[in-house]
Amino acid sequence: MSKIVAFGEIMLRLSTERHLRFSQSTAFGASYGGGEFNVCVSLANYGLDAEFVTRLPENEIGGSALKEMRKMNVESKNIIFGGERLGIYFLETGAGTRGSNVVYDRAHSSMATIEKGLVDWEKVLEGATWFHWSGITPAISQSAAEACLEAIKVAHKMGITISCDLNYRSKLWQYGKTPSEVMPEMLQYSNVILGDIDTAYFMLGIPKVNPNYQDEKSLPVLYTKLFDLIPNLKTVATTLRYSVSASHQRIGGVLFNGKAIYHAAVKEVTPVVDRVGSGDAFMGGLIYGLSQYENDNQKALDFAVAACCLKHTIAGDYNLVTLKEVENMLGGDSAGLVSR
Amino acid sequence: MSKIVAFGEIMLRLSTERHLRFSQSTAFGASYGGGEFNVCVSLANYGLDAEFVTRLPENEIGGSALKEMRKMNVESKNIIFGGERLGIYFLETGAGTRGSNVVYDRAHSSMATIEKGLVDWEKVLEGATWFHWSGITPAISQSAAEACLEAIKVAHKMGITISCDLNYRSKLWQYGKTPSEVMPEMLQYSNVILGDIDTAYFMLGIPKVNPNYQDEKSLPVLYTKLFDLIPNLKTVATTLRYSVSASHQRIGGVLFNGKAIYHAAVKEVTPVVDRVGSGDAFMGGLIYGLSQYENDNQKALDFAVAACCLKHTIAGDYNLVTLKEVENMLGGDSAGLVSR
Amino acid sequence: MSKIVAFGEIMLRLSTERHLRFSQSTAFGASYGGGEFNVCVSLANYGLDAEFVTRLPENEIGGSALKEMRKMNVESKNIIFGGERLGIYFLETGAGTRGSNVVYDRAHSSMATIEKGLVDWEKVLEGATWFHWSGITPAISQSAAEACLEAIKVAHKMGITISCDLNYRSKLWQYGKTPSEVMPEMLQYSNVILGDIDTAYFMLGIPKVNPNYQDEKSLPVLYTKLFDLIPNLKTVATTLRYSVSASHQRIGGVLFNGKAIYHAAVKEVTPVVDRVGSGDAFMGGLIYGLSQYENDNQKALDFAVAACCLKHTIAGDYNLVTLKEVENMLGGDSAGLVSR
Amino acid sequence: MSKIVAFGEIMLRLSTERHLRFSQSTAFGASYGGGEFNVCVSLANYGLDAEFVTRLPENEIGGSALKEMRKMNVESKNIIFGGERLGIYFLETGAGTRGSNVVYDRAHSSMATIEKGLVDWEKVLEGATWFHWSGITPAISQSAAEACLEAIKVAHKMGITISCDLNYRSKLWQYGKTPSEVMPEMLQYSNVILGDIDTAYFMLGIPKVNPNYQDEKSLPVLYTKLFDLIPNLKTVATTLRYSVSASHQRIGGVLFNGKAIYHAAVKEVTPVVDRVGSGDAFMGGLIYGLSQYENDNQKALDFAVAACCLKHTIAGDYNLVTLKEVENMLGGDSAGLVSR
Amino acid sequence: MSKIVAFGEIMLRLSTERHLRFSQSTAFGASYGGGEFNVCVSLANYGLDAEFVTRLPENEIGGSALKEMRKMNVESKNIIFGGERLGIYFLETGAGTRGSNVVYDRAHSSMATIEKGLVDWEKVLEGATWFHWSGITPAISQSAAEACLEAIKVAHKMGITISCDLNYRSKLWQYGKTPSEVMPEMLQYSNVILGDIDTAYFMLGIPKVNPNYQDEKSLPVLYTKLFDLIPNLKTVATTLRYSVSASHQRIGGVLFNGKAIYHAAVKEVTPVVDRVGSGDAFMGGLIYGLSQYENDNQKALDFAVAACCLKHTIAGDYNLVTLKEVENMLGGDSAGLVSR
Amino acid sequence: MSKIVAFGEIMLRLSTERHLRFSQSTAFGASYGGGEFNVCVSLANYGLDAEFVTRLPENEIGGSALKEMRKMNVESKNIIFGGERLGIYFLETGAGTRGSNVVYDRAHSSMATIEKGLVDWEKVLEGATWFHWSGITPAISQSAAEACLEAIKVAHKMGITISCDLNYRSKLWQYGKTPSEVMPEMLQYSNVILGDIDTAYFMLGIPKVNPNYQDEKSLPVLYTKLFDLIPNLKTVATTLRYSVSASHQRIGGVLFNGKAIYHAAVKEVTPVVDRVGSGDAFMGGLIYGLSQYENDNQKALDFAVAACCLKHTIAGDYNLVTLKEVENMLGGDSAGLVSR
Repeated sequence: MSKIVAFGEIMLRLSTERHLRFSQSTAFGASYGGGEFNVCVSLANYGLDAEFVTRLPENEIGGSALKEMRKMNVESKNIIFGGERLGIYFLETGAGTRGSNVVYDRAHSSMATIEKGLVDWEKVLEGATWFHWSGITPAISQSAAEACLEAIKVAHKMGITISCDLNYRSKLWQYGKTPSEVMPEMLQYSNVILGDIDTAYFMLGIPKVNPNYQDEKSLPVLYTKLFDLIPNLKTVATTLRYSVSASHQRIGGVLFNGKAIYHAAVKEVTPVVDRVGSGDAFMGGLIYGLSQYENDNQKALDFAVAACCLKHTIAGDYNLVTLKEVENMLGGDSAGLVSR
Repeated sequence: MSKIVAFGEIMLRLSTERHLRFSQSTAFGASYGGGEFNVCVSLANYGLDAEFVTRLPENEIGGSALKEMRKMNVESKNIIFGGERLGIYFLETGAGTRGSNVVYDRAHSSMATIEKGLVDWEKVLEGATWFHWSGITPAISQSAAEACLEAIKVAHKMGITISCDLNYRSKLWQYGKTPSEVMPEMLQYSNVILGDIDTAYFMLGIPKVNPNYQDEKSLPVLYTKLFDLIPNLKTVATTLRYSVSASHQRIGGVLFNGKAIYHAAVKEVTPVVDRVGSGDAFMGGLIYGLSQYENDNQKALDFAVAACCLKHTIAGDYNLVTLKEVENMLGGDSAGLVSR
Repeated sequence: MSKIVAFGEIMLRLSTERHLRFSQSTAFGASYGGGEFNVCVSLANYGLDAEFVTRLPENEIGGSALKEMRKMNVESKNIIFGGERLGIYFLETGAGTRGSNVVYDRAHSSMATIEKGLVDWEKVLEGATWFHWSGITPAISQSAAEACLEAIKVAHKMGITISCDLNYRSKLWQYGKTPSEVMPEMLQYSNVILGDIDTAYFMLGIPKVNPNYQDEKSLPVLYTKLFDLIPNLKTVATTLRYSVSASHQRIGGVLFNGKAIYHAAVKEVTPVVDRVGSGDAFMGGLIYGLSQYENDNQKALDFAVAACCLKHTIAGDYNLVTLKEVENMLGGDSAGLVSR
Repeated sequence: MSKIVAFGEIMLRLSTERHLRFSQSTAFGASYGGGEFNVCVSLANYGLDAEFVTRLPENEIGGSALKEMRKMNVESKNIIFGGERLGIYFLETGAGTRGSNVVYDRAHSSMATIEKGLVDWEKVLEGATWFHWSGITPAISQSAAEACLEAIKVAHKMGITISCDLNYRSKLWQYGKTPSEVMPEMLQYSNVILGDIDTAYFMLGIPKVNPNYQDEKSLPVLYTKLFDLIPNLKTVATTLRYSVSASHQRIGGVLFNGKAIYHAAVKEVTPVVDRVGSGDAFMGGLIYGLSQYENDNQKALDFAVAACCLKHTIAGDYNLVTLKEVENMLGGDSAGLVSR
Repeated sequence: MSKIVAFGEIMLRLSTERHLRFSQSTAFGASYGGGEFNVCVSLANYGLDAEFVTRLPENEIGGSALKEMRKMNVESKNIIFGGERLGIYFLETGAGTRGSNVVYDRAHSSMATIEKGLVDWEKVLEGATWFHWSGITPAISQSAAEACLEAIKVAHKMGITISCDLNYRSKLWQYGKTPSEVMPEMLQYSNVILGDIDTAYFMLGIPKVNPNYQDEKSLPVLYTKLFDLIPNLKTVATTLRYSVSASHQRIGGVLFNGKAIYHAAVKEVTPVVDRVGSGDAFMGGLIYGLSQYENDNQKALDFAVAACCLKHTIAGDYNLVTLKEVENMLGGDSAGLVSR
Repeated sequence: MSKIVAFGEIMLRLSTERHLRFSQSTAFGASYGGGEFNVCVSLANYGLDAEFVTRLPENEIGGSALKEMRKMNVESKNIIFGGERLGIYFLETGAGTRGSNVVYDRAHSSMATIEKGLVDWEKVLEGATWFHWSGITPAISQSAAEACLEAIKVAHKMGITISCDLNYRSKLWQYGKTPSEVMPEMLQYSNVILGDIDTAYFMLGIPKVNPNYQDEKSLPVLYTKLFDLIPNLKTVATTLRYSVSASHQRIGGVLFNGKAIYHAAVKEVTPVVDRVGSGDAFMGGLIYGLSQYENDNQKALDFAVAACCLKHTIAGDYNLVTLKEVENMLGGDSAGLVSR
């Protein structure tokens, strides 16, 4: 049985309803989420053991986040407490030609002020088969980056599969370091990476290229370069997203396992109920697929794409769908029939 | 003046809002509806006399359903009271690739435990010109099937036009009988049937075919077979539904009167506000059309399709539109202009 | 460390908001609760290990109840699945001179159709120090009564403390047995009973008396009679409730340990946000007090009364307060000051 | 069987929720009500035949009011259509020391522009046993006053019992006439009047006194003066209201039948959910009591007071309680116990 | 710095939520807006000085409208007070094939009963560079038309640029005059006109034509005719709107400056959150563009079209977007990406 | 004409509705407020010129706060922009025995990181007659304390009346200084102080006493000590608050002008809709009273108490009542009658 541990931040998400702008709202929807936690929820929904490690403030807002983790059946026993506040992000959901807008208010959060040495990773990772982190954690503070690197190193030493979602956020990285100063060391232990080729190159400090994901010739070369730089790399995958409008997306995916390129068919996603967390849904699907369909990279990729598409129909940060629902879509059922 | 009487179940409908999943909902929208009642509301909205006969529990939930019937101007004076509970169905409204999901909780309802002999049909049907029932009633229990058959026989004896919407629901039919054991006798009195050819064949216990509704040659043959089996049949109609996604439907229709085939042009329906009850809206439109435009089967069918399309824009089970609105759409106005 | 296991039903609660009547409501608040589960939540909130055993239907409504249990940190691993439906109760919250109204729709629920033999109680109760049940379970069906008796017997054999909240509900007990036919055998294993003297007498089949809870002379005699009939009894407690109006209650309590009577001071409770579950809050407080303040019956009783009072300020079935909040009130802080 | 017909205005009521001020509200609760209609709802709830006559605009807002009448089981078949608009009133619900605030926007409504001759009162009142009107109708316009007088005269000629609720509203009476110019002729046909003595004197154009409703000596004298001026008068009743705060009222009542004074015990009403329409609830209770308990004036008055008290716990304009609920309160049950 | 003054009516807007019909709504969204005020909000959002002149009733509803103006940073110091009521319009938001429906309830409003002489226009317009009015004001009453003409004449005399949005509303113009009797004199002072050619011809009393907005030959001729009739005309613009459905619009625009025709590319607008006020958003964009990009008519038109498109994604009457958001769309960014 | 300038922080307030606990809430009410801003709103409502100076972040949340200031007619032209975030406080509204709970999340806000020298106080205070600050600003950070002292000194130099609400918050003062290290210098320029005697003594670093506010002998002595320490002091006032429960307060007040003691009668306040900001409402009433009723200290105090009482009925931070409403209550009208 697979057991996945993820490390990252969970935030209070305050969102406007019915496409209202911030200044029109007399109430904000209150939920909880964050990239790495969202991955855990996906995996718990698919029936795997999933544990999330983070740092929470000892107040009622932190306590509410903890209750949400429990509700989602994500193990929370190794969470540490301390610090001042739970990170917040404000979300104004767009429509059509108006994109959604995120206002971050996550500086000085309990997770941003975590330090290495606070988590006993040998104990936490005992029995784990997979460790997941993302590029958001090193983006929030120097000490969070160090705490994350500490975890990565322990996971690597224990022989656990390590995955990273690159997750570049231009509004973060405010503490004085650039991704290329921080990410290369962190990424070298990764076995699975999810991200655009350009983002990967940028984080590794190599010049950007202009990848054509349909070009069967150039693509393996570009991916292979990542394998050259990251010794432990086994799989790289990229979500292909064509944004027709805030309400209409087209989603596909590419996966490279060092030898072959796999493509998933592009699917129409319209309307978009909530696209935040759809990348995490892809990541969750990919981890599920790679760990459960071990010799079938195509199926793993297709599962990730189907999961990502379904996420766009779910309100909130994480992908509240069952294994059966993803499998049904994988099997071709996407006509949205009423089940009765 | 036409007076329509329908017999069936009205339920409490508990629905999630804004595409939330059941487990995300801290409130359920509460409304009332059911296939045959929904037909009555359509007809009352178009200005006909419509009466609904059912059995309600003597508690406040049954009382609330009764108030809703009155609000909709559907006659309720012959409703009988008794039994334990009002049937419930839970509805999770899908979007895009995620279909809506219905969880039935209607077993042991007052209507499911109705028995023949409880309604004085001769008295109820006095003055009625049309009696409507659907395949849902025989699907909920043996005794409901018997009570419905009793009504059908009285209506037939009184010379009243009888219509049936086949309405096959795979999650029902749990009481030990199959449709082909129950439906043939009930259907033989029908003058008007709404349903897919395959569903009709299945319910009549004849082998399924694979009808091509665009094929002018094979179609009359397939429909004619129904006329052969049902001596009183005058009209069969089928709703053509192409489901692009939960949010985008294409709706057309076919009608056969024993002699000629009529086709209605397929219309785009997007977005879908609520597709539950759109079949009942078709049925309501068909009854209106057949009874009011007696010699114009094309107009009757077009009216049914227009009514069905409009229903997709209305929240709740029944088609809360006016005669004028359907007629406007019939007249070509479907651009959704603001009226001001 | 104490570990409490409770057995009973969890229901979907559908409540009107802002004192609306059922027929005025276009939405029902949706939450989950039930007498014995509510006790578990209290104990989990106070920091004890609490587990709830019940039977849930395998549909999304049952799944939502399960998620709520997890959120509340109540262990759910021994829950069994099967049956048709989750029990429902409708709640119309009164105000002033208009009392709240409950419409039960819990017949035929998964818990009502549970049968003995479905739960492996030896395994479930391993390591448990306390088993709790209530008079609701034997009131819903014969087979639920039998399943509950089975659990009680195992708990007794394993030497676990057993508590029972008598919880008489006149709208239940519909299956053909009276409390006095069923309860005496079930109660004989109880070590702790919560309930009115009259209710206890009624359930044990002895003639009702008219207890004066302020009378220090007659009271021990009346309670002692229960000790005579129930060989394992150690503690009986009674919630004293004076209902000024639906919005204003006065709450006190009495406890008898076989030797001495303890009285808790009566507290004013106004306004009442939600009084459903306040008896369960008393029970939860009593179990906490008896198990944690072992030699201080007065403190245990006072804790139960304070917990019960606070519950009236909490929306929903269970007492969402912390140990610290009950202790603060126990310490005299009931002026409702702002904490900032 | 009694059949009551009332004549007056039904309005759209737009109310702020949760004690918000108008300028804080981004939504207004939308319901329908009006003094005379509210009386009809009371009587329909108690099981009598009740019919409401008014004039509605032919637009969707008027149509929504009509649907509400039907929902409440009030006969609407003699309503006439025409005019520009449905009257509106805005309601800001107060609390404690801040009283509720009503902003009228009912000028130029369909009812305000009604004219005599539009209703065929002989036909409408056929079979009626009671006709009810109130001092609001003559307050809104000259032509409404005339239309109301026309109805009163027909009712009187047909020997129907006529009741009037004086209902003085200082913000109305804007069309150039004073109550004492209009009301005396209208009141002379009344058999039952509800109102303060001072209001009655003011409307009849006689000098105000300062009635002491507890003074058994002066009270009959003051009421008798009304009998002297109104030849048909049989019963006068006055609601006694002591306003502790917007959230706390004390309600009693006095009735004089030309011979004896009856007093109802004063009841505490706290909290107040909604006091608008509580006078109409008194009126509805009084009509019920006088028509059903014909020889028991005390019981009729007590019923009216109990109905009035219960109304304060109901949101909206009219008294959504059952006959049984009023009778229970009449029987002494006002402790607000949970029914389960 | 530009300073714009607009004159017109602001109304209370009562809208149904989630596509509900009027009769389904138990609450109406309450906001404030009106054609000319909406233009002011656009301009204030873009950073210009904008002032709105109207007449408000001295009650809390008028006060709430005033607070909304202040919130939107629109100068309100010259508003005059008096009259009976704030105009209201009810809005039922359509979807797909069902168009939105507006029920006006604005007769007898404070603005409708304004009279000339009440505003000191010389003082109000001191320092103003632009005066804006629309065809709605002369449509509501004779006296409003006269008050508007008074303002136009003063503005003209003071040499201020005058713009008019023709805004024909068939449900208005109820006071006995036709547009062609009233509008020609009012329009002769206009420097900028927004409207369809046919509407302009109709209002000027010349026979309707059937303009082909893609025909480079006929179009200048048709527009030139307007220049012939209106001596001060400098710019005419027309919004091109192709309504696929209530949820899907295609928006383009044409501008003629007396010499050349400018076309803006047609943009897809789907889904439509709220199309009310999208014409005002065009007008606001046009005024901004003409006043700020003085020599670039193409850019002015493109800005107006982009602003109009964005408005369809904003709930409420006015275009709550920033200058930067319109500029981004102008720059080609319409893919609705998440900003984070 | 009086012109008041206040300096302090405005926060986003996120509150649970209907007494829900934080962990039960899926939405938070979103409004804006803060002690000194709340005072400004009171004064603007009473018709005075009020200006608020603070520092806001340049994001949409700061922008929304700015829009709220404008809506409330509080001048905002001298607000400065910068810093990271708008301070937040979470509010869980209690009831009865459960007090409200505030969770502060205001560290690192734009106001907390303000520094002296950023505001040009000579220019800001030109024409001002009153400057108001409170003990909250020096409690949030060292630099905010310094910026506030800077403003105080300029105001003093310009001869402007200075008032301070002591506003001690135990959850603040986290930056390493105690009130007695910071407040004495700041307070020495105050002409008006609102606060408990004990709080004042504590902040001035003198030993606490146990004041009896009913003791006419000891009270002048205790207040006089403050006059001795603060050379510019003219008026000290204290709000007397007796907290029966979170839903029931008793409010009175005491004022000392250096010579005489004034007492305001204690008023019952129940129910409490929202008590946050009631102290600010007192302060706002006091400033109004002292500046407008210059020679009538009793009336000024009574006005402050009446304003404070009314605030408890208003949702949100500030006192949204009119001058007329406070005056009515001052005149004895507190029975909460309906105005219609």
